[in-house]
Amino acid sequence: MPPRPLFVVGGLGDGSGIGAATAKLFTRSGYSVALIARGSSGTIQRLAEELNASGGDAAPFPLAAYTYTEIHRAFDDVRKHWPESELRVAVFNIAATTFKPFLEYTEADIDASLDLNIRAGYAFAREVILRQKEQPIGEHGKRGALLFTGATASLRGNTRTCAFAVGKHGLRALANSLAKEFSKQNIHVAHIVVDGVIATDEHRSNNDVGWNENPDVKLLPETIAQNYLYLANQDRSAWTFELDLRPAHEKW
Amino acid sequence: MPPRPLFVVGGLGDGSGIGAATAKLFTRSGYSVALIARGSSGTIQRLAEELNASGGDAAPFPLAAYTYTEIHRAFDDVRKHWPESELRVAVFNIAATTFKPFLEYTEADIDASLDLNIRAGYAFAREVILRQKEQPIGEHGKRGALLFTGATASLRGNTRTCAFAVGKHGLRALANSLAKEFSKQNIHVAHIVVDGVIATDEHRSNNDVGWNENPDVKLLPETIAQNYLYLANQDRSAWTFELDLRPAHEKW
Amino acid sequence: MPPRPLFVVGGLGDGSGIGAATAKLFTRSGYSVALIARGSSGTIQRLAEELNASGGDAAPFPLAAYTYTEIHRAFDDVRKHWPESELRVAVFNIAATTFKPFLEYTEADIDASLDLNIRAGYAFAREVILRQKEQPIGEHGKRGALLFTGATASLRGNTRTCAFAVGKHGLRALANSLAKEFSKQNIHVAHIVVDGVIATDEHRSNNDVGWNENPDVKLLPETIAQNYLYLANQDRSAWTFELDLRPAHEKW
Amino acid sequence: MPPRPLFVVGGLGDGSGIGAATAKLFTRSGYSVALIARGSSGTIQRLAEELNASGGDAAPFPLAAYTYTEIHRAFDDVRKHWPESELRVAVFNIAATTFKPFLEYTEADIDASLDLNIRAGYAFAREVILRQKEQPIGEHGKRGALLFTGATASLRGNTRTCAFAVGKHGLRALANSLAKEFSKQNIHVAHIVVDGVIATDEHRSNNDVGWNENPDVKLLPETIAQNYLYLANQDRSAWTFELDLRPAHEKW
Repeated sequence: MPPRPLFVVGGLGDGSGIGAATAKLFTRSGYSVALIARGSSGTIQRLAEELNASGGDAAPFPLAAYTYTEIHRAFDDVRKHWPESELRVAVFNIAATTFKPFLEYTEADIDASLDLNIRAGYAFAREVILRQKEQPIGEHGKRGALLFTGATASLRGNTRTCAFAVGKHGLRALANSLAKEFSKQNIHVAHIVVDGVIATDEHRSNNDVGWNENPDVKLLPETIAQNYLYLANQDRSAWTFELDLRPAHEKW
Repeated sequence: MPPRPLFVVGGLGDGSGIGAATAKLFTRSGYSVALIARGSSGTIQRLAEELNASGGDAAPFPLAAYTYTEIHRAFDDVRKHWPESELRVAVFNIAATTFKPFLEYTEADIDASLDLNIRAGYAFAREVILRQKEQPIGEHGKRGALLFTGATASLRGNTRTCAFAVGKHGLRALANSLAKEFSKQNIHVAHIVVDGVIATDEHRSNNDVGWNENPDVKLLPETIAQNYLYLANQDRSAWTFELDLRPAHEKW
Repeated sequence: MPPRPLFVVGGLGDGSGIGAATAKLFTRSGYSVALIARGSSGTIQRLAEELNASGGDAAPFPLAAYTYTEIHRAFDDVRKHWPESELRVAVFNIAATTFKPFLEYTEADIDASLDLNIRAGYAFAREVILRQKEQPIGEHGKRGALLFTGATASLRGNTRTCAFAVGKHGLRALANSLAKEFSKQNIHVAHIVVDGVIATDEHRSNNDVGWNENPDVKLLPETIAQNYLYLANQDRSAWTFELDLRPAHEKW
Repeated sequence: MPPRPLFVVGGLGDGSGIGAATAKLFTRSGYSVALIARGSSGTIQRLAEELNASGGDAAPFPLAAYTYTEIHRAFDDVRKHWPESELRVAVFNIAATTFKPFLEYTEADIDASLDLNIRAGYAFAREVILRQKEQPIGEHGKRGALLFTGATASLRGNTRTCAFAVGKHGLRALANSLAKEFSKQNIHVAHIVVDGVIATDEHRSNNDVGWNENPDVKLLPETIAQNYLYLANQDRSAWTFELDLRPAHEKW
């Protein structure tokens, strides 16, 4: 029996957002799951245990920081962990999100945005592309899929989003360049524009009962994850580069 | 037993493109299917027979022309045909596509683009919205879905696409306005940007064997249709307004 | 002495907006000025008199309606009026602007938007291009300039702007197509995105003294017109297709 | 007599492009001119001498590298050099442009793009905004203007432009955020999308006589500079955030 296809996700926050939801959904869909994130909080260790307890095949790959070197090492470790697997789907979900007026940003805020959104995105993408381009064309006519989490700030700046927008615009440029260059090699690169508030644990606790119980006003990590799975499964005859996602009642 | 949900599609060309492919896919997915198109060629009559022969529940609603009056009447006839059904998904696929240098366009070309892309789009959308807003919220948290077929020309003009681009830009503005206004009423409006050549009968016969046998260079009506079905089924917590579709090897 | 270069503007509203401001500025800049508009109100007749009284060379070309035929005839009349002049700058400023919820629009509203924004734009552009392409390359390396007035609704739809957005999107597609096709023939086509409220007589009387006296919150027709003149004078080595204009304090 | 207004430009390449052309034009327009660039090649020293020899008031502010610290120090030195002047116009023209396939980029290429396009842009903008917001509103209703040089790669990625596009997208997000936040304080921020090849010394020598003598195919630094001056002088009632510039015969 061939090994399960491999799913890699980078960036899992507190374990209640898109990263964790995609890890769970791809586990249920038959993928081995590599969790790459800064590991001090134990989030990815606990998530891997949870996935494995439910019949999954997951492992955590904690980093001290999202540097080129650490990301490269994490992918090496992933390969050692599943030496026979093909890396069929990768999700880049790492982000730095600090919202404040321009003059309150520090150099460290800008650096963090560039480090997490762009430099980590570049390093992550490089590892994924280097592996996927050597793989055979598989299901759906693709060697692999590489999906990037974007945001409204990927498309426009705003009064309190400068640092975030800088990083997210840059990440979108990366995704767009990769899509154009590697689609010819049957690597499917896509960019998901998440427009609205996601019902993570943090946002759930920061909002009132009305918000928590209203199905029309918040993005659910689980339904977002379904879109990632959908994109990964699109046939080569009709690939999407970009789609937006927002709750039904979101004003935009 | 409740009646099947109703799917309406306008614009079916020669019966080998997106319109027909969505009609077939929504039939297989359990929808009654109303086919609205100019009827002189018999395309929608034959397609309805084919769908019914395979266990579907389809009917043709031929028009003499895509006028406000005829479109209104067609929807009235659809209602009479399925008086108990809920119009859950509608696809606007009517288009006029004439490509030539600007000075070769006639007034009739411009009028045809406005009539088919925009005026028909307005009339079609109005009928759909008027019905869907009166329906209860159903599966996926929506009263209904209204999907528009767009193109690269929806986003930019070009040297030989003026008349098409004018109509497609206008249609996109319609879709965008509707999405913003009616998402609050749980009507999901989306716009699909089809970027590339679709393997209709016409394009299949105009292209050589290499193109016909290459799975990476052409859009398949069947896989495009899967995206329409996917959008129709998106949960209210994560709706897409716009996605692009192109073959893996398309240059863009 | 060669005749003055000719400036043609279509669409002058009540004579206090962009159309009239450009007519005045191009008069001061040494152009003969042709005023094309629906003529029943006497606006362009009075404006022509005013321009001529100040040393200008203007004439009104009233239409009963912005039809293909009438626009064609107006340009014929312009040519007869100035048989020796070169049509160096043309401004398309005709628009229909009705703002209301989608379901309150009538078919007549949609038709008016298509007629005034798109069909008139097409007819106007055709007349301009047909003349300019036969002219020698003149100052700034251009045979002529053709400028279109756009709006925020040229770029996105919204809850109460459907009919306007449909027309303005279509007009932008026309401008974009023309720019790509005719720049190679040294015809400079540009599209100005006016984002904010213009201080026309109507808007001045509808707003309070605070607004009228605040120089930061409203677009002035005179300063908008300076941008049209600037674009008309751009050298062939650096042409702009699109620029946006908004008051300093506009929220966007 | 009040001191001349101050113009600051960062990024001058080999002294034959946009940076030098704006320095010359603003000198002719009556501005003192501060030249900020990496100084080892002597470019800005020679340019300052040339400007001063023609009656200008220019000074070079060489940096070892475009770091936060060095940029901050350069602005301090500018202030000491002209303690009484108001910084009315600033142009950010620093860029790193390396074009190659994705997998040939090194980490150093990505870092250079982020350092020069984004981190330097942030540091430069911060210094400018901090000064301009303390200045009185002057001519044209503005405390100052801050202009960013963009490119086609600011708007989309491509197969060989990944590193450049990442940096330029990020810079556009910075400009867009600043425009929205500081226009209310009468600081005019604009972004110029340069689309085409500029006739710098390097490009002149890399191209043949046909290209060099053809006025329709290349961007001239001098005419680009006129657009920067035009934007700096736009009245507060009609500010442009973004315009594109390309040669008449550019394909796009």
